[in-house]
Order: sequence, then structure tokens, then C-alpha cells
Amino acid sequence: MKNLSTLTEKIPVGILGATGSVGQKFIELLADHPWFEITALAASERSSDRSYSDAANWFMQTPIPSHIAGMRLNRCEPNLPCKIVFSGLDSRVAGEIETKFAEAGYIVVSNAKNHRMEANVPLLIPEVNSEHLDIVQNQEYAGMIVTNPNCSTIGLVIALKPLIDNFGIEAVSVVTMQALSGAGYPGVSGLDCVDNVLPFISGEEAKIETEPLKILGNYEQGRINNIDIKISAQCNRVAVIDGHLECVSVKLKSKATPDEIIQVWQNFSGAPQRQNLPFAPHKPIHYFEENHFPQPKLHRNIDKGMAVSIGRLRECSIFDFKFVLLSHNTIRGATGGAILNAELMKANNYL
Amino acid sequence: MKNLSTLTEKIPVGILGATGSVGQKFIELLADHPWFEITALAASERSSDRSYSDAANWFMQTPIPSHIAGMRLNRCEPNLPCKIVFSGLDSRVAGEIETKFAEAGYIVVSNAKNHRMEANVPLLIPEVNSEHLDIVQNQEYAGMIVTNPNCSTIGLVIALKPLIDNFGIEAVSVVTMQALSGAGYPGVSGLDCVDNVLPFISGEEAKIETEPLKILGNYEQGRINNIDIKISAQCNRVAVIDGHLECVSVKLKSKATPDEIIQVWQNFSGAPQRQNLPFAPHKPIHYFEENHFPQPKLHRNIDKGMAVSIGRLRECSIFDFKFVLLSHNTIRGATGGAILNAELMKANNYL
Amino acid sequence: MKNLSTLTEKIPVGILGATGSVGQKFIELLADHPWFEITALAASERSSDRSYSDAANWFMQTPIPSHIAGMRLNRCEPNLPCKIVFSGLDSRVAGEIETKFAEAGYIVVSNAKNHRMEANVPLLIPEVNSEHLDIVQNQEYAGMIVTNPNCSTIGLVIALKPLIDNFGIEAVSVVTMQALSGAGYPGVSGLDCVDNVLPFISGEEAKIETEPLKILGNYEQGRINNIDIKISAQCNRVAVIDGHLECVSVKLKSKATPDEIIQVWQNFSGAPQRQNLPFAPHKPIHYFEENHFPQPKLHRNIDKGMAVSIGRLRECSIFDFKFVLLSHNTIRGATGGAILNAELMKANNYL
Amino acid sequence: MKNLSTLTEKIPVGILGATGSVGQKFIELLADHPWFEITALAASERSSDRSYSDAANWFMQTPIPSHIAGMRLNRCEPNLPCKIVFSGLDSRVAGEIETKFAEAGYIVVSNAKNHRMEANVPLLIPEVNSEHLDIVQNQEYAGMIVTNPNCSTIGLVIALKPLIDNFGIEAVSVVTMQALSGAGYPGVSGLDCVDNVLPFISGEEAKIETEPLKILGNYEQGRINNIDIKISAQCNRVAVIDGHLECVSVKLKSKATPDEIIQVWQNFSGAPQRQNLPFAPHKPIHYFEENHFPQPKLHRNIDKGMAVSIGRLRECSIFDFKFVLLSHNTIRGATGGAILNAELMKANNYL
Repeated sequence: MKNLSTLTEKIPVGILGATGSVGQKFIELLADHPWFEITALAASERSSDRSYSDAANWFMQTPIPSHIAGMRLNRCEPNLPCKIVFSGLDSRVAGEIETKFAEAGYIVVSNAKNHRMEANVPLLIPEVNSEHLDIVQNQEYAGMIVTNPNCSTIGLVIALKPLIDNFGIEAVSVVTMQALSGAGYPGVSGLDCVDNVLPFISGEEAKIETEPLKILGNYEQGRINNIDIKISAQCNRVAVIDGHLECVSVKLKSKATPDEIIQVWQNFSGAPQRQNLPFAPHKPIHYFEENHFPQPKLHRNIDKGMAVSIGRLRECSIFDFKFVLLSHNTIRGATGGAILNAELMKANNYL
Repeated sequence: MKNLSTLTEKIPVGILGATGSVGQKFIELLADHPWFEITALAASERSSDRSYSDAANWFMQTPIPSHIAGMRLNRCEPNLPCKIVFSGLDSRVAGEIETKFAEAGYIVVSNAKNHRMEANVPLLIPEVNSEHLDIVQNQEYAGMIVTNPNCSTIGLVIALKPLIDNFGIEAVSVVTMQALSGAGYPGVSGLDCVDNVLPFISGEEAKIETEPLKILGNYEQGRINNIDIKISAQCNRVAVIDGHLECVSVKLKSKATPDEIIQVWQNFSGAPQRQNLPFAPHKPIHYFEENHFPQPKLHRNIDKGMAVSIGRLRECSIFDFKFVLLSHNTIRGATGGAILNAELMKANNYL
Repeated sequence: MKNLSTLTEKIPVGILGATGSVGQKFIELLADHPWFEITALAASERSSDRSYSDAANWFMQTPIPSHIAGMRLNRCEPNLPCKIVFSGLDSRVAGEIETKFAEAGYIVVSNAKNHRMEANVPLLIPEVNSEHLDIVQNQEYAGMIVTNPNCSTIGLVIALKPLIDNFGIEAVSVVTMQALSGAGYPGVSGLDCVDNVLPFISGEEAKIETEPLKILGNYEQGRINNIDIKISAQCNRVAVIDGHLECVSVKLKSKATPDEIIQVWQNFSGAPQRQNLPFAPHKPIHYFEENHFPQPKLHRNIDKGMAVSIGRLRECSIFDFKFVLLSHNTIRGATGGAILNAELMKANNYL
Repeated sequence: MKNLSTLTEKIPVGILGATGSVGQKFIELLADHPWFEITALAASERSSDRSYSDAANWFMQTPIPSHIAGMRLNRCEPNLPCKIVFSGLDSRVAGEIETKFAEAGYIVVSNAKNHRMEANVPLLIPEVNSEHLDIVQNQEYAGMIVTNPNCSTIGLVIALKPLIDNFGIEAVSVVTMQALSGAGYPGVSGLDCVDNVLPFISGEEAKIETEPLKILGNYEQGRINNIDIKISAQCNRVAVIDGHLECVSVKLKSKATPDEIIQVWQNFSGAPQRQNLPFAPHKPIHYFEENHFPQPKLHRNIDKGMAVSIGRLRECSIFDFKFVLLSHNTIRGATGGAILNAELMKANNYL
């Protein structure tokens, strides 16, 4: 394979919803990307024609990249000077706008939920189901649409994939403690999260219970056949800035020892690692022996926020095993995941 | 029954571990008790002979009751001028000290874990197993020892009891999000709880998995026979001051509809309600229809912190039902629960 | 004086902005008021004609009072069946609506800023300037308007008043750490307050620098003459639910010892205490000797949230003295303060 | 000047108090240092002879550097294989141990308070008083001791220095809102910081009021003559992980406009910038025009945590100006500051 990191010309990319929290994270992560170069920013009408630094209430923990600050914002219309658009649009508008861009020939790499469950749209986690990318050939757009899963789905599926491959899974019960950043900005009121937990996140449980079935489905003859696993989810919002923590119980199809499970986690890798994609974590899964790990504050940024941390594997009197997992919801679970999808497409000559 | 609230003479009670966080809460809650009067305070040697206000780093949200502030602290030795001792002792010392007091003829009402699982020590939740109190007659002490369960056990068992009575339960999976006050003072470091969740609480999961089996056991011929239910627990510490939230999944023995379940919860009551005990919540269980309730900040103090709040009952694809419950860990789950135990003893002529 | 608490007929009161956070607190505090009875609730058009429990996202820590839950919401138009209206309206609409009610003959007791600085509108803290109430006779309304100060002004002025009376004050420098509830609901984003401090609150510093001058002004011949004190304020928002903490430095006109200052604070009282008003704190000021007090979590509710807590009085190398004060921003600093104003009016026959 | 970054041999350094929170931060920051190489770790007796990863409860947000994890811990005795020791010792033991190391010929670069105010020990902020380093020649040790100021002093003094140089300063009033990490680990209880502010930090105000006088003093004839400025400090602890925020009021000796002040801040630089030291921030001071900046969460890490952020400069009715500043307390204010001191020593041939 041609060494992509020495490309002299970068691929021009645009960001839809550039002023929102997902858009800001896309900008932060793409600012120095070896393959992609931000050439267009788009947002809602009221921001258009203003400079980015003027229109955006920037609240990332790094400054606005200097070459971005002065860029002018466009409307979200398919006349942007770029090949790929990363979509950080709100789901109230994402569906229609993304379709327009795909129709106009753009590669749409979306973080929004709108197209995720459509039959011919791949719902990608490159370590898990890179082969699903092929389904884009069924799309009737001049361009194409690929999506990444919901932020709390991604970490869970990465943890489950090696168990499925090695032991099979029958059922998964998961209780999440999700970070504030998953609700966007301003999102959750300070009055609701200080000294409190919110035991409900609208629509979240349904996503966790259905998206993995597609992602983990097998792909043959141009179709994804959902996997047959029972998943039950309970979702909570806690006063954590970044990093979704999940308490998981799993029933396996065949016997496994704790050591075998830890081993298949530690050995797990996929297309991004094989193809050495820029955003690929060195190891997709880090297992911690310490019984008080992983913790959001300490481990969300491991491997640049692209790895899943797991700990506390132990036997369960009802299921077979239970454990705790953590993944960075706005990096691995959103923008970083989307960028990895675009990298996978580039590496496999879909661009 | 004689109307106990018009007793002209109150029963003298002492508090062991009076300067700690549990001890302070006992003092706050007992300050105006209609039946009990604090006549003795005891703590570790280094505090003894000092005035209470001088020795205690009082951090309740109400001031030290004025008649307590000047009381002198005693050592934890069985020469206190009282009939009952409420024990808020740390488990490292509670076992031995409580035994000494019971041997010396005191009624020991303990919040510590040490004696909970002993065959002849009742592990009481008065709404659930008031009949277990009878087992004290097997004790060979001049006095006696009764205990209340672990803070996260109490709320769970109250929620399960009407389900067991009406439908039977086979299995319970529970994930807790527990408040900081459960760890005592200073307890959890601010550096560990701000922007973080701790996915481990030492010894807690074992307590939740075993204590309910005894509490829910049936009592016959002077013995408690544990109930046969599988319980699996995962415990987390979150940045909440008071109030343990629990995500619960249950497998029932017989069919039930959501409405039936809500009804048996709402109709549930027990000995404390029948006997109109001073610390009895008006209703042991409050069910909320709003899907974002219960929340620790909003609902922990319902019915003076003695009620369990439940919400979000819904069907589960793996178990039969899942729901969220909340109870105040230092009131219902500790000191208030212990006081209710003492009230039950008084009302039933054990004192 | 006639004993007001034995009135058999309560005065009918309405609440403007009843669904907002200030409105909810008015309802919570007035639910069992000995003199006032809530007979009307009003809110914006979109809520009108709905039942209160249906329209309000109730988030107080006590349940909606049962007789309020089913009340129907009116529009904020001066046809409400009550004599007094307590206004918890947002300042974007409060000015005009309150004027309409006053013109129509209602007694408007407002927490909004709009009319505060008008020459004939008393800006009241009953312990401090009850005599200012007399200025309502200059108003040309059929009814009248009285206001209470900004939440961070009230605590400060109560602390300053006895110093002015006894020693005189030349200058006051104050840095505030203000609670989230001061910004209303949803107010401050969780992403902005967890692991963070916001060093800016729009318009707040100007209020603290000007309102005290009117409140502390002397009233003669139907005019309030502002006091001549220099005040400089710096305001911050911190992750506290309720309770504004303020670090204050004061330059006095005449010498004072720390003991003298503490004594004038502890001896301070005013009209509400003399007239035994229902919402009057027993003591307006509580001084703490402990050097780590007062703290928002521990002391905001002292005297039902109506007292100001002070601590850490010490000499200052630049000013004369510095100290820390705390007051409950939504009780003493808003709704409780407004209710005390209405009580003062009643007790002095203005109603 | 010789290009120090191309040195082929690194200087061996040791860390005293290596398992504590300051020690851990030293390790994190020194792991890839271009000039220094960690060759020795020392801690209290109970940790000695254990491997670092075994003895330390590592809670940095990056993993233990791999070459450190297996290193064996020594006692804090002057037989370590290194030239410099960075001291993160607790002040209860730091004084004596540091003296022993200096006597034995080590260069002691200390973050502890014990030796700071001794006449011949430089209290260094390299941008501010690099010339004070010369005073080490008065020390009678075989080695030497240099210190950095208290964490809340450093940011303040960097902000004041250009004002003093250009306009002179008469008086400074400062109120701090300090991060939890400043109290070490476990430090502040979660029960004390969630939904709360602590208005007292033992000994802190005295440090802020005295250390700047020495740091800003002029150095002549082998003596530091304290500057004559009045400083008054009030210190608070807030629920922020890292980053001390300070509200400052200053009285200048000569007139200045806001623009002039901002300009001297923005133009400020010192020895570390001139000498291009590895840990030098690109710009020591960043001024923000946005009125809600700086904020701990957003700006503490600017310039790798070594810059001071300032905002909200405005006129004051009592002093001349007031503003807000922020600096990272464990990097600029502790370990990063100490490392910069060592770099200054190396660059100026003191090693």
C-alpha cells in the first residue's frame, strides 16, 4: 500500500455544523491531520458569512487553530470547496442536509443518528466491521453516506466484538453513566448535574439496544444481517465532563475463563491497526488489573481518546461475567470515530 | 396499644461513635425524638472527657442541638447512663464494643456490619421483616443486638419486597450510583469525585448480594431461612452528597403487568405504618410517572428521607422488568433505619 | 399592635412567573404562610390555561403543594383574584407587566430588577431600611410597587448596616462566589460549571456597586438620599447549588476592634425582629468563630435561609478589615426577602 | 550560547517525595525532558525498596512512563545517583531532608515552603527575578538550594511584574479560588467540595502576602531587598481539579490606561523566553478580550500549563484597576516552575 502519510496533497474536507460542540471537536482533531485539510466550514444561516472565531462560542480546551479562526462560515448547502464533509449537525436537520450533500456527490461522514439504520448506510466501527463499508455501493447517491454509532454504543461494541468472535454472546445488560458533553452545549443544566444524577437520556437506551445488532451483523451478498443478541440498556447522566462509563453483564454462548477473556481483549485489533491509520489507537482495548479502574478522569484520554478501557472483569451469579468499560464519548464515540471512518475509506480507496 | 407519643418519660439512649459522620446524623435525628432522649455520648479515647462541640468536627447542615453541644464525651465502655445504645462505630472496632455492651445488658441498635449476618441477630427493615425481631430471644446476652442492613441494601429490599410477596422473584441485577456520604468523612477525595466516577466500592457488592437473602428469609421455629434469589451487584461512587440511585433489573416468578407492579408498590406498607412509628414514612414507596425521576437532589428527602423513590418501570428484553430506585443512604439507609428499628422494639415491648 | 398571626382570613396573593425557578420558590415558601394564601398563578401565554403541575417543570426539593398542583395558570394580566402579586418575572418582561398591575391597583412585590432604582420605588431590606417603605406614597399608581435587591446585594448590605451605624464605612471591596440557582433554570450549563469557575456574571457587578447606595441612603422629606460609599465588586459563578459566598474588605470611618465589630453584628436586629414577622430570622446575622466557616453547604439554611452568616473577621493591611459572608440567594436573596417585604407592609398597614 | 537541546548526555536527576502528588507530576513532566533524565526516586521509608509502580497510587491522567514503573524507590537520603534533586516533599519533613542533600553537594530544586524565605535561598520565577539566582553563592552548602514560590503566588507575581516595571504598584488586594490539586492527595474531602466552597486555606494568605515582597525585591551586593507593596489576600478552595483563579485589584504609582496595561502584559517576557528554555511558555502572559475568560477548565493548559491567563481588566472605583488571572497550580505553580528553575540554572552554568 502506498504510504499515505507522505501524500503531498491533502484531501479537502468541510465541516457541517462547525460552530456546535461536535463541530468544534472536529476542528480541534482535524487541525493537524496528515491526510485531511479543512477547507470549508458550514453552519446555520444565522452564522453564515461571519468569521469562525466571531460566530463560534469556542469552548475547547485548546485555542482555535489559527488558520481556522479567520475562515468564513458558509451555509450548509452543497457548494462547499471540499470532497468530504464531516457532519456534526443536530439530528433535527442532519437527515435532509446530509442527503443533499450525498446527492451532490460529496462523501458524507456523519456523526448524526438520522441515516444510521438505513439498509445501505454502513454504521462503522473500523476495528469491528470495516467490511460493511462495501455496502455504500448500493447507495444511489452521486456521493455517499457513512455513519458512526451513538457514543455509548461504540465502547460497548468494541468490548463485545472479541467476546463474540471467540465465545459467542447471548445477552448483554448494560447500565451507563454518561458524560455531560454527550448532551452537547449548553446541554445539561448545572442545577441538574451538581450533587445529582439524571436517570434518563431521551432515546439513548433504544440506540444501545439496536445499533450493535447492525454493527455486529454479518455482511454478505450486499446485505447486513443483524446479529441475534439480546441487549438491555439503562442510561444515566452524571457530572463528568468527558467519558462514558458502562457497567456490563454478558451471557456467553460457550465457556470462557476470566484469563481467556482478558487475553482476547488485549489481543484485539482490526483494520485501523493493520493499516496503521493515523487516528487508530495503538491498542483498541486496554485492560486494567487495578480494581478501582478505569475511571473517566484518569483514562478517557488513553491512546489519544481512541481506546476503550476495561476493568473489573469478574464472574456474575446471573450472567456469566460482568465488567466496567470506559470510552471517550466525544473522541472515540463521535468525532474521532468519524475521522477514523474517513481514514478507512481513504486507505481502502473509497475516496 | 398504649399511645406511645404521650409518654411523659423518654427512654435514655446513648450514641457510640458520636463524633463520626454516622454519630452526628444520629444526634441530628434524635435531638427532638418523641420517645428517646440522648443521655450519653461516647467516642474514641482521644475525644473522651472533652465537650461534644469541642471534640466533634460537626458538619451537619443544621447546628449542633444546644443541649448536646456541652455534653461530655465518654469512652465506649458499658457504663453509660442509658438503656439503648445506637452504634455508629467504624467496623474496625464495632464488633467487640457492641458485644461488650450487649453482654452488660444494653440494647445495642447497630448500623455497623459486624454482627449483621450472625444467626441470632436480626437484620431489620421494619416494613419488610419485623417478625425477625423475635430472634433476639435466642441471643445469650444480658441485653441484645439488632442491626440494620447496608445503605444500598435497604432501598433495594424495600422495592423488592412487594414484588416477592405478589409475584415472586428469581433474579435481580443491580448497578448502584452511590453518594459520597456513604463513605464517611473525609471518605472520598475531591480529586477522585469531581469530573469522575469511581467504579468500585470495597466490600459493597458482596453486602448487596447477601444481606437481602437473610432479610427476605422466612422466620420459623426460631430460625431465619434465607430466601433463594440470585442477586448480582455492581457498585459505583458518584459526586452526589446524599442519596443512592440504583438501576435494577428483575426476573419474576409469575407474570405481572407494569400497572400491577406499580400498584403493589404504591399499596405497600408494613409494621411501622400500622403502628404509626414516629420515623415511619407515610408511604414506604413513592412511584414517579415522570421518566426523568427519581433524582438524588430532588427526591432523597421525601417523607423525611425515610421513603424509597422508584421510577422508570419498563419491560426488559432480558429480565422481565427494569426500574430505577433512590433512597437516602444516611437516613433510611443508616441512622433513620436504626432509629426505626428501636421504635419497633419499643412498640413491641422489647425495651 | 393586633396579633396578625391569628387573623382568620388570609390575604389572597398571586404569583407572576409562577412556573420559573423564582416562581416555584415563591410557591414552596408561601404554601403554608400564616398571613398569605395563594389564590392565583400566572405565567406566559404558552402555559396559560394549563394546570400548574402540568405546565411547570417543578424542580424544588419538596413536592408541589397539593392545593397548588391543580390550580389553573392565568396570563400575566391584571385580572387576577388577589390583592398582592409576587413577581418572579424575567427582567425582559417584568417592567411593563408590573407597571400594569400597579396601575390596576395591585400591590406588586417584585424580585425583578426593572423598577428597583426608580426614585419612588422602595428597594427594601426590612432589617435595614424599613422606613423607605413610606416612599410608596409618592407613587402615582392605584396600587404600588416595592422591590427587593439583587441576591448578592442583600447579604452584603445586611453585613454592612451595623458597621455603618456604629463606625461608618468609606469603601467596600467585594469578590463574590455565586451559586448556580442565581442564574435561574436551566441557567448555567453543566459543561461550564463542573471543574470550573466562571469569572463573569452579566450586569451583576453594577448592581452590587449601586443598589446598596440607595438601600443605605437616608430617607427624609419623601426622598431617599444615596449614601456616599465606594463599592467595587468582582463576581464569579461557582458549582454550588444555593448560597452566595462573598469575600469583603471594608474601610471604616472610625476605629473599631474586631470584638466590637462582632458584637454589633451579633446584636443587630431590625423591624422584622421587633415586629416578629413570620419570615424574620431569629437573628439576622450569625457570626462563626471557626476559621473555615461559613460554608454554602453547611450554613445557607440557617434560620430558614433568612440569616446572613459571617466569619473570618480579621485585620487587613490595605483596608481595615476583611471577612467572609454567606447568604441564601433564592431565599434571603430573592423570594424570602420579597415575602418579608410583604409582611412588613402588612404589619405596617400598607395593605 | 551553546545549543543546550543537542546535548548528548542528559543530567541525572532524582525526585524526593516521588510517590506523592507533586512527585508524580514531576515524573510526568520530566519523563521526556531534553536535558534531564530521572535516575533516582526517593520516598518515605515505608515505600522504599518497592518498585515505583507498586508503591505509588498513580493518579496522573497519563500512564506511568514505562522506564519509571520498574524503578526501585530509595529512602530520602543523600546517596542517590544524581546531580539535581527535585523536592516534592511535604513541608513537615522537607526542611531537614533538603538541607542534608544540599550539605552533601546536591542541587536541591524545591517546591516546599521550608527554605523559601531564608536570606540566601533564591525564591525564583525565572521570568521575574532570574538575577536572584546569584544569591546561591552566599550559601554555605557543598550543593545549593533554590525554591519556587507558593502556587497562588506565582501567577499573581507574573501578572504584577510588568505593572511594577512600567507603572509601579502601591497595593494589591487578591481573592483566590483555588483548585483541589493544590491540597495534595487525598487533600480535600468530596463532602467538603461538592456543592460547596471552603473559605479558608491554612497558611495560604500569609504566603501570598509575603513571598511576592522577596521575589519582586531588588538584588544588589549579594542581598535581596524586599519591595515595599501592601498585599492583602483572601483564599478559597473550590471544586476545580487544576487551575487557581484570582480576582485582583491594584493601586498603581503612576497613571496608566487599560490599553497600556494590556500592552505591557502582552509584551512581557524574561530570561526563559530569551534563553529559549524547554519549559518556557511561548508567552508568559495571555490576555483575553472575552469578558467571560479566563476559565480554569478552558485555559489552565495554555502554553503547556506554563502561561498565566488574564482577563477582564477594568477600572476600579477604589483601586485603579481590577482583573482576573488564572494559572495552573501544579504545573506553573509547582513542578513546571521548579523545572524551569533548574533549566535556568543549567543555562546559566550553575550546574
